[in-house]
Amino acid sequence: MATTDKASPRERLLDAATELFYRDGVSIGVEALCKSAGVSKRSMYQLFESKDEVLAASLERRAPAYAARLIAGPDDAGTPRERILYVFEQVERGSASPEFMGCPYLAALVELKDPAHPASVVARAAKEWMKDAFRGQAELGGAREPELLARQLMLVFDGASARAGVGLETLDGVAVETVRVLLDAAGVV
Amino acid sequence: MATTDKASPRERLLDAATELFYRDGVSIGVEALCKSAGVSKRSMYQLFESKDEVLAASLERRAPAYAARLIAGPDDAGTPRERILYVFEQVERGSASPEFMGCPYLAALVELKDPAHPASVVARAAKEWMKDAFRGQAELGGAREPELLARQLMLVFDGASARAGVGLETLDGVAVETVRVLLDAAGVV
Repeated sequence: MATTDKASPRERLLDAATELFYRDGVSIGVEALCKSAGVSKRSMYQLFESKDEVLAASLERRAPAYAARLIAGPDDAGTPRERILYVFEQVERGSASPEFMGCPYLAALVELKDPAHPASVVARAAKEWMKDAFRGQAELGGAREPELLARQLMLVFDGASARAGVGLETLDGVAVETVRVLLDAAGVV
Repeated sequence: MATTDKASPRERLLDAATELFYRDGVSIGVEALCKSAGVSKRSMYQLFESKDEVLAASLERRAPAYAARLIAGPDDAGTPRERILYVFEQVERGSASPEFMGCPYLAALVELKDPAHPASVVARAAKEWMKDAFRGQAELGGAREPELLARQLMLVFDGASARAGVGLETLDGVAVETVRVLLDAAGVV
């Protein structure tokens, strides 16, 4: 864990949670989490009601950086088509890292299997935000059916990142190429 | 559990494993598994080396029925295009069930996060089998790049079933429509 001595117990817990839940899954125990964070269980329970709340908070804290890495900034030039393709180029690039395990939000939803879990609520919001971002670009790009295109892009995004994350797929342009076909069909040139 | 008194302890364990791992995830304990199967832990360990082996065997046993439900039988008429679309129509149909939690093989891989786990080996083989089936149909249908099309179809299959399985998507034709676009672009008419 790359945490400094200056990080608060809360920060250390969230850093450890982000790393461990992503790498090992949501079922890792409080013991392992606290040990990795260098925080006592007593301190953890003073800061958070439960392990579930730590997981939810770690996913929430990660969302802005996750989105920023995928989405080209507002200052960037580029057409809506280029901005949509950029997201998939970034996924393909990111998936080459040995640490890549797919989208952390989809993984949390698949693992938790409980829509009412506080971390599921956070994860669903992150995925909705991304679909809305695609929809916005689809509208700007003059897509015939922006909502349909946004949903199609999410199928490809989640399929590509899940398959690459579990080692079923090596993304070598296949996601970008698939998205090009969908953009062409939707009239986003 | 819909098991009859005549089912062997092995069958009852595999039935319970199929249901519980799919519904609750791979981290459910030996205790819960044996209780649901009505089998003692002692009996389980006489039949299987570990819970991991029960999980692997349950995924392996499920594979033929899973494939049969998705893929149109060899006697069926239909062009390669129709047979590919049939798979996605079946996913869309299946995803309407409240018990639907996505593809059990992808879910196991996402949850286990360990390519060497015996159940990951079984799951990967099932996913490879499906990609090969798509590739075979793509070749028969005259796809320009059968391997590319098969990989694209798997992105959509896994994205659609994972998203529907966790409640992010209601498949109302969106997967079938996406596949139509990809088939058109690949020249599979």
